[in-house]
Amino acid sequence: MTETKARPTGVPQPTAPPLIAGNRVSAPAGHCTPAGDRHGASVIGGHDAMGTDEHEAPVILEQARGRVDPELRAALESLPGAMRRIGLYHFGWQHADGTPAAGNAGKAIRPALVLTAATALGGPTAGERAVRAAAAVELVHNFTLLHDDVMDRDASRRHRPTAWTVFGVPDAILAGDALQALALRLLAEDPHPASGAAATRLVDCVIELCEGQQADTALEKRDPAEVTLDEVLTMAEAKTGALIGCACAVGALYAGAGEDEVAALDAFGRQAGLAFQLIDDVIGIWGDPSRTGKPAGADLAARKKSLPVVAALTSGTPAAAELAELYARAYDEKDLERTALAVERAGGRDWAQTQAADRMGRAMQELARAVPDPESAGGLLTLAEFVTRRSS
Amino acid sequence: MTETKARPTGVPQPTAPPLIAGNRVSAPAGHCTPAGDRHGASVIGGHDAMGTDEHEAPVILEQARGRVDPELRAALESLPGAMRRIGLYHFGWQHADGTPAAGNAGKAIRPALVLTAATALGGPTAGERAVRAAAAVELVHNFTLLHDDVMDRDASRRHRPTAWTVFGVPDAILAGDALQALALRLLAEDPHPASGAAATRLVDCVIELCEGQQADTALEKRDPAEVTLDEVLTMAEAKTGALIGCACAVGALYAGAGEDEVAALDAFGRQAGLAFQLIDDVIGIWGDPSRTGKPAGADLAARKKSLPVVAALTSGTPAAAELAELYARAYDEKDLERTALAVERAGGRDWAQTQAADRMGRAMQELARAVPDPESAGGLLTLAEFVTRRSS
Repeated sequence: MTETKARPTGVPQPTAPPLIAGNRVSAPAGHCTPAGDRHGASVIGGHDAMGTDEHEAPVILEQARGRVDPELRAALESLPGAMRRIGLYHFGWQHADGTPAAGNAGKAIRPALVLTAATALGGPTAGERAVRAAAAVELVHNFTLLHDDVMDRDASRRHRPTAWTVFGVPDAILAGDALQALALRLLAEDPHPASGAAATRLVDCVIELCEGQQADTALEKRDPAEVTLDEVLTMAEAKTGALIGCACAVGALYAGAGEDEVAALDAFGRQAGLAFQLIDDVIGIWGDPSRTGKPAGADLAARKKSLPVVAALTSGTPAAAELAELYARAYDEKDLERTALAVERAGGRDWAQTQAADRMGRAMQELARAVPDPESAGGLLTLAEFVTRRSS
Repeated sequence: MTETKARPTGVPQPTAPPLIAGNRVSAPAGHCTPAGDRHGASVIGGHDAMGTDEHEAPVILEQARGRVDPELRAALESLPGAMRRIGLYHFGWQHADGTPAAGNAGKAIRPALVLTAATALGGPTAGERAVRAAAAVELVHNFTLLHDDVMDRDASRRHRPTAWTVFGVPDAILAGDALQALALRLLAEDPHPASGAAATRLVDCVIELCEGQQADTALEKRDPAEVTLDEVLTMAEAKTGALIGCACAVGALYAGAGEDEVAALDAFGRQAGLAFQLIDDVIGIWGDPSRTGKPAGADLAARKKSLPVVAALTSGTPAAAELAELYARAYDEKDLERTALAVERAGGRDWAQTQAADRMGRAMQELARAVPDPESAGGLLTLAEFVTRRSS
């Protein structure tokens, strides 16, 4: 359910396998970026008068932000006083004192996926008509962030104090509740024929996100020896994959796609989301602190049962026993290097990188199934690779 | 947003004015309970094979509970593991360890209002078809209770430990989030033509509930001298009236009622809800502890800016100044009687009782506007009086 806290931009994973260090090496050959003949026609629908390269992820994201922000902002402005103030603060459009701010609402990956999926399957008009649904998905994402920050007592997000630190825990909980309701209101008021089906998918997704977040906190309290790899994979899919899959599926619904295409795009998003989580967990152990903005081995210090750690613990190797013994002790900085090495020697790092590549491979298969035309699939491919490269 | 904590059953307001002590004295004459010729035809739709008096509130509530519980329970059972466990616990269908329990989910007033409103305007079939919507309204009510208990740190509800005390704050927040989503899923999946309009009303209501709960906590932190009567009335309407109004409006929508009737039934519920809150606040000061289950003057001890207190504080009387002075001090039990007397002498008690009668009068007018036939309106009238009599 959480979004990894923002790291400084331009952070390639330092020891990335080819999948994530290179450019599209895992993609089917036919899915290479189409050339300039589509310049000027945005992959999220509509036309890009600027003539920029619409297949670069930052361009897609910026276009999506430009489309969705007015809808999002109008929705937030429609809220009553206190809910409006907290919502606008959370999205970065207001300072804590209610004065206007520049806005800093994250990378807009999920709304970009809605618009790009709709465009890929239904053309530019479908993308244009999915703006409200894209805003709804972004509202759901942000409702979960507001609540996650309360639950995790996280004090900063997007380089600003979190809402609960500014307005108090009760108000942050209430604002999260209101944003969930607002997301559903956008869909309830949307005359698009797919809005009902999108609402059903979105609320199912919220339930899965809640279960995933609950599983995460429950797992962290359990004896590491009793946690299975299947459990953490299921949790990661619910917490991270579900909403990315839902965004793609909602886009497909808004393109009038059939059940199979919708399911395939959901699976594409889920697999890409899992690949992202695997790579994020690798960075959480071996990432360069000067690039990640987090202390070295932060996840190990917190005794987090991240995917590489559970893979290592359940490997049945001598290094697994050593790791279990280290995890049973209170954290001591002098053990950090040895702990990371134990995860590596038990195969946790290799497993995570292989799994990430495997998940991206499956994502590509699902994408090809939903959008056989490589040119139409280009935007979704770019976004999936952007997410898993963690380049911003 | 809160439901007043359950008090022991059979608690008439000890110093109640005729409005609430007597039976239907404030109702227009034509609205008296119709006699036995309607025995056997339930006011919430369908037929009552038992031949009991269907115009007694307990009978209406029990029938509603019987209709809605299977729908509610099936919805909760459809949740994934942890969300299901917490949801079933909160509704009283499971003990904390997951073993079955008898169920103790409150009085079902809101679902009863949905079914009764649908039946009043559309006949028994409309009532039968509104069961899913009634369950959705009850889920919304319970999602707010889960979150309110977290925010208020209330340790018991319906004579059981609250969910957050059993499962922890994060899990209770997540279960609340999941119940909101589940409510909207019930409506999204309901093929009834009114389900979309009902969803829009319900999410708007959630936003109002959130704002009302926020206003309540914000008001409690402010200097009593700066709080106006309009503010507390608006807050009480949002916190208590909105969902009762929404329940009635949703019932009207499910009966295929026109915009005017829907608006009138919403106003009926809001006014009845406000009357309930006014009387609840009177009980909070002058209620008999042996009957209310709360210590005498609990609201005064907590320096609560309840409706009679703010009416007293803003009365411009000498007693108002005395009350302000008492409220500015730390609570001392020996001052309790004097404080209650100051509220009374400043006119707070009379004002609240007059307001309650006035609100019930307005509620009756709105009811007559929406449902001119007194016989059809009987069930809604019974429920409104039941709620404001606080007889259970």
